[in-house]
Amino acid sequence: MEIGNLENHVQSEPMEESSQAQISHLALDIGGSLIKLVYFSQNSDGGCSKSSVQVSNGNEGGPVLQGKLHFAKFETAKIHDCIDFIQSKQLRVTGCQHNGASANEKCVIKATGGGAYKFADLFKEKLGICLGKEDEMDSLVAGANFLLKSVHNEAFTYMDGQKEFAQIDQEDLYPYLLVNIGSGVSMIKVDGPGKFERVSGTNVGGGTFWGLGRLLTKCKSFDELLELSHRGNNRVVDMLVGDIYGGTDYKKIGLSSTAIASSFGKAISDNKELEDYKPEDISRSLLRMISNNIGQISYLNALRFGLKRIFFAGFFLRGHAYTMDTIAVAVHFWSKGEAKAMFLRHEGFLGALGAFMSYEKHGFDNLMVHQLVQQSPSASHGGDKTHGPADSELNDNPSINCSIYLS
Amino acid sequence: MEIGNLENHVQSEPMEESSQAQISHLALDIGGSLIKLVYFSQNSDGGCSKSSVQVSNGNEGGPVLQGKLHFAKFETAKIHDCIDFIQSKQLRVTGCQHNGASANEKCVIKATGGGAYKFADLFKEKLGICLGKEDEMDSLVAGANFLLKSVHNEAFTYMDGQKEFAQIDQEDLYPYLLVNIGSGVSMIKVDGPGKFERVSGTNVGGGTFWGLGRLLTKCKSFDELLELSHRGNNRVVDMLVGDIYGGTDYKKIGLSSTAIASSFGKAISDNKELEDYKPEDISRSLLRMISNNIGQISYLNALRFGLKRIFFAGFFLRGHAYTMDTIAVAVHFWSKGEAKAMFLRHEGFLGALGAFMSYEKHGFDNLMVHQLVQQSPSASHGGDKTHGPADSELNDNPSINCSIYLS
Repeated sequence: MEIGNLENHVQSEPMEESSQAQISHLALDIGGSLIKLVYFSQNSDGGCSKSSVQVSNGNEGGPVLQGKLHFAKFETAKIHDCIDFIQSKQLRVTGCQHNGASANEKCVIKATGGGAYKFADLFKEKLGICLGKEDEMDSLVAGANFLLKSVHNEAFTYMDGQKEFAQIDQEDLYPYLLVNIGSGVSMIKVDGPGKFERVSGTNVGGGTFWGLGRLLTKCKSFDELLELSHRGNNRVVDMLVGDIYGGTDYKKIGLSSTAIASSFGKAISDNKELEDYKPEDISRSLLRMISNNIGQISYLNALRFGLKRIFFAGFFLRGHAYTMDTIAVAVHFWSKGEAKAMFLRHEGFLGALGAFMSYEKHGFDNLMVHQLVQQSPSASHGGDKTHGPADSELNDNPSINCSIYLS
Repeated sequence: MEIGNLENHVQSEPMEESSQAQISHLALDIGGSLIKLVYFSQNSDGGCSKSSVQVSNGNEGGPVLQGKLHFAKFETAKIHDCIDFIQSKQLRVTGCQHNGASANEKCVIKATGGGAYKFADLFKEKLGICLGKEDEMDSLVAGANFLLKSVHNEAFTYMDGQKEFAQIDQEDLYPYLLVNIGSGVSMIKVDGPGKFERVSGTNVGGGTFWGLGRLLTKCKSFDELLELSHRGNNRVVDMLVGDIYGGTDYKKIGLSSTAIASSFGKAISDNKELEDYKPEDISRSLLRMISNNIGQISYLNALRFGLKRIFFAGFFLRGHAYTMDTIAVAVHFWSKGEAKAMFLRHEGFLGALGAFMSYEKHGFDNLMVHQLVQQSPSASHGGDKTHGPADSELNDNPSINCSIYLS
């Protein structure tokens, strides 16, 4: 995107509401289950202006675009909906629809996740767009660092139904463990900007919850399955310590009678078939099994490297209270309170944000995204509170007000 | 058991084959899914004799019973079969059926596992027997130490379809990690005889495999489910790295295209219902998910404490080649070859053996079980080989020839 090009564009098309506004700099994260999009829309006052926000990068004098970062997602299986969406947004990216652009001039959208490889040909064919492939781990880490450094009230803890926003000391951010729960799970030790190592992972992740959940409950969507779990009782399905010990604790090793000895262990009974169990009980047991397992493996990896903070992200979470609570309790339990689980409001978009940031890294348009301001008012519910109840809006993909500096 | 009592008994009833022979010293491990039994039968040459085996406990001069330790199991749900079995064996235990025993004289069978608490009243009512409760972890560790120290060709490694018996250096046995996979999983750091700590565990264990497996496949038994997995192809159900990356590896982080990214991740597809998947594919995916997860968590715990050797036991394994292979590969993969998975032939009977040993610990009968000889010939197939193929007989609960010293 060249400055002149953008100015022409802004002048030629009156801005509508942000959802309808001309967008630019779209980036994609195409995972096994979901496609995540991040894109920038300029505010309706339009055009370039001098920065009114204090920034610390010595770029105060450059032109700045005020606008918002928007977030959207699609199922990977419905990738054509995503392509239609991009088409409908009349996206202007570098080289695209640029009068006089030579045939060799590539029209590139930054993309990460395995789908950036798998669907490269499809994007070329349908949109005439090349996917500029960014490494998945690079992108996750860049996205996490960006959110933790630049977005107010991004990180929070969750325990006993209470979320508490965390004030992250920028000087004390690193090292941390980033656990991204998508279809599968990646665990990344982050030591600084661009400095990280994928230390572990597990194949028991969001795809397992949704895949097993579909087979067992016939739910039609991930969110329906998650919603079901809210009403379920896992004790109908799980074998508890008390079920084995005749109602008593196993005190000597600190296991209460209500601790789960064996997930789905009660389903070994000859007397009941799948149809005899309530889908909500199965969903809850499944969610608890997977959340607890991820919490435990995460903690063990944090312990390996002496990391006190673990940030959990990825679309498995869906800002879902019970999921976060189970993960937080697992980390608390296994670490005996030494390690802390934290969550991110834009949990599902780390990879897409990281890919978005990579426009800058590659000096593509001399673009710089810096010093993001507050999240947009529509999503800032509870923004000034440091405590709040479980909130269904918590994860409604809040857009982020931001400024883009053009140097 | 008093010596006189036993001698009377041996004299009054001619010995038949070992399965019919008079038994004594039965011990139980009553878990969430299975009841495991260990009992001693005297050889048909009967009576007490001087030891002909070199022992190192200074007990050479005492009377000795030559015989066998036998192993049996029942489903906990069918506990009445177990009670009938004990009754049919006309068990003589201390105080039981002892003429002149006072009403206060307790008839005690050593028992461990949660069922020792849960079913105490039932045993009292049906058999007039008190269950002498032994701690589950104590028993597991005592059983493991006994097997590793006293039974020839007990421990083996398993990789690529090859088992290799391990010669355990008694001076170099400790510390090790013991992973007992029953309905749930316990992970115990063993530092010496009676010196141990339960450091971790997971509720994703054998009960999860069987419980989820029953719901998903309608199999009628654990062994049927395990057998199914042998013929299955998990790639139909699991989301592989290549499924996300369009058939290519994700080389940068060392994940091949055939690595499982998300267990059951392919089942998120809208196009297929549970009935459209083959039970054998589901079983294999499930087995691989759980085995791999246990292997990973075990390794992470071994790493915490610098333990190079991990012994896996518990009835989940069933001497099943694919299960052991997956666990061994998981430990090898995560530890980059640093840690080694080992297995035990009497994998399912650690707790019951430990409870059996506790007769000695409590000085109950001045009984000592020492210096077990070879496993019985009927079960010693491959006993002298250090290499052998996958063997369906591997886990046929081989009896152990042994001597019981009476001091």
